Amino acid sequence: MVKEKKDFSITPYEVGGQVDYSKLIKEFGVSKLDSRTLERIKKQTGELHVFLRRGIFFAHRDLNWLLDEYDAGNKFFLYTGRAPSKGSRVHLGHLIPWIMCQWLQEKFDVDMWFQFPDEEKFLYKPDITLEDTEQATYEDMLDVIALGFRPEKTKFLIDTKHAGIMYKEACKVAKKITFSMVKSSFGFNESNNVGSIFYTAMQAVPAFLPSVIKKKNIPCLIPLGIDQDPHFRISRDVMPKLGYYKPAIMHNVFLPPLTGIGGKMAASSGSETAIYTTDTPEEVKKKINKYAFSGGQATIEEHRKKGGNPDIDVSFQYLKMFFEPDDNKLQKIHDDYKSGKLLTGELKAILIEKINKFLSEHQKKREQAKKMIDKFVLKN
Amino acid sequence: MVKEKKDFSITPYEVGGQVDYSKLIKEFGVSKLDSRTLERIKKQTGELHVFLRRGIFFAHRDLNWLLDEYDAGNKFFLYTGRAPSKGSRVHLGHLIPWIMCQWLQEKFDVDMWFQFPDEEKFLYKPDITLEDTEQATYEDMLDVIALGFRPEKTKFLIDTKHAGIMYKEACKVAKKITFSMVKSSFGFNESNNVGSIFYTAMQAVPAFLPSVIKKKNIPCLIPLGIDQDPHFRISRDVMPKLGYYKPAIMHNVFLPPLTGIGGKMAASSGSETAIYTTDTPEEVKKKINKYAFSGGQATIEEHRKKGGNPDIDVSFQYLKMFFEPDDNKLQKIHDDYKSGKLLTGELKAILIEKINKFLSEHQKKREQAKKMIDKFVLKN
Repeated sequence: MVKEKKDFSITPYEVGGQVDYSKLIKEFGVSKLDSRTLERIKKQTGELHVFLRRGIFFAHRDLNWLLDEYDAGNKFFLYTGRAPSKGSRVHLGHLIPWIMCQWLQEKFDVDMWFQFPDEEKFLYKPDITLEDTEQATYEDMLDVIALGFRPEKTKFLIDTKHAGIMYKEACKVAKKITFSMVKSSFGFNESNNVGSIFYTAMQAVPAFLPSVIKKKNIPCLIPLGIDQDPHFRISRDVMPKLGYYKPAIMHNVFLPPLTGIGGKMAASSGSETAIYTTDTPEEVKKKINKYAFSGGQATIEEHRKKGGNPDIDVSFQYLKMFFEPDDNKLQKIHDDYKSGKLLTGELKAILIEKINKFLSEHQKKREQAKKMIDKFVLKN
Repeated sequence: MVKEKKDFSITPYEVGGQVDYSKLIKEFGVSKLDSRTLERIKKQTGELHVFLRRGIFFAHRDLNWLLDEYDAGNKFFLYTGRAPSKGSRVHLGHLIPWIMCQWLQEKFDVDMWFQFPDEEKFLYKPDITLEDTEQATYEDMLDVIALGFRPEKTKFLIDTKHAGIMYKEACKVAKKITFSMVKSSFGFNESNNVGSIFYTAMQAVPAFLPSVIKKKNIPCLIPLGIDQDPHFRISRDVMPKLGYYKPAIMHNVFLPPLTGIGGKMAASSGSETAIYTTDTPEEVKKKINKYAFSGGQATIEEHRKKGGNPDIDVSFQYLKMFFEPDDNKLQKIHDDYKSGKLLTGELKAILIEKINKFLSEHQKKREQAKKMIDKFVLKN
């Protein structure tokens, strides 16, 4: 378990406290996603996605190597995932790596492998059944499809459904991972169940399964939240031993919960801290108005005089991280808020409109996705 | 790891020393297979197989409960298995539980599930690949089919091939097994790989998979070598938690290696200690004559005078355990050998003829089995 001196903690199972991302880069041994690398991406894509321009993806492993391979004609594929869980609906924070993947698929014209490890939450949480998880998997697939992935270039892998092709490969990974490695990476102990101990091997499989199927070594790029990095720290060590490239990784920061800029938006922390993809416009309005932590002053008078603090204002941060891609417009909102010209209520109104516009479109596509699932799920 | 005070040791991965089966019954907490239970079997089958009459199956768990269920019209199914491994050919010792299963299938008219855990040896031995194991699995299936199982009532499960139906069920088992449980049952430590730690969950699955498929709770009977008991000690605890019966178990003693009556015949100990199902008549003759440990005296003169000791004579033990089902004939061989009338060479000649007759028939059926594999392997 990676613990950073009491200030904050990051593991695949917990994100707590105010996250210091510079410290995290050092702690995790990842590289900063710097302007040189971003320029290399821009050379291929013509433009940079807002998540790249604004540092939402802030770190990486081996991205320059991946771009070297791409330049040399060796296309990569994308891999990310989502662990379905009863009662854990998809929220805006989940969408960040997925939107990044969709954009990268489009710009680089590459395959996308999306894993739904439907056993993971079951193995880690006492009160979840595998039967519960089936419905959750279905709901999650709708959100992924709604983001616009191309069906002919996208494969959904569902662990229990595709174990017939995954388990054999997972055994090859598992043979190279000892209990003590898992123990130190995930903070496990002897009371962990043997399924949870094995699970990291299943999570590694999609990073080389396309290479197995196509019988050639294909580079892999995994966009993910930085908290999921430990899973791949182990598998990056293992994959060269099996004859495959280490997957490259791009790490994103956490979308903060509504209630304050520490930690990450989490489906498990209660519905007031997160905006879900299935929230109604009224729910969004109510949540933002009621819960979104404000950087403004206590009274309008004081706010007009002293101004607000956009750096700790969750509404502003959401606009910056996700909903206002126009740099000039964002700058104006920033300046107006800081000067006191823009009130907290007005800032929230801007965000509410943006989120609801996004969700209205997303929910429409999510409905259409119901007829498209078969096109995405890998044929067994 | 079950260690019996330095005299002998029994785990699923090692059998060493002279085995004291009475001690083992106590140590393992199993029940002696007594005349009362044998009579109950005989009531259903009309006769008792030589393995039952002569104590080759010597212990059990819950066999009386299983027979109660059978009497009440609740038929059981049989489950046993074989872990395929490159360089580990099937020998006579392997056949004992399988022959028992075939006999029980015939007499009780029940289904047989035969597991080929093709990942097990791969996970436990550094130098084995999964690709090597494919050929070994094929060879092993031929030996099983050759024993006369009924295709319409027999299903072969191959772990990597059938993981699509097994992994999900294995996760349910795995959630109930902690590392410390596996550690104490199998003598594992933190250097064990995570695949080997998970594996026992896969081994439990066939004991309830028919119940999953048929959506009703069906009793299970597992004939196996006593060294495999620890795998099922854990899963017997788990299965009621999943809503299934604990499987009943019948335990057989080990067929001793040619070289002496301690330990068990093992494919991994070198070809001189075991008779393989694919051995030629010449190989059998040579091995028995050269290696079969003799209870006879050093010279013919001495043998005629003092007589031999059938209790430690491997050839006599093979006749008793496997190849001479006629009690009168066996008694005569015993008495003649003990009195010195029958010489070691003559005793060996009797055994050689018996084994070669058995193998000649087995090998013929093994050839025919090549066209029957599809009838046995479970449809995915």
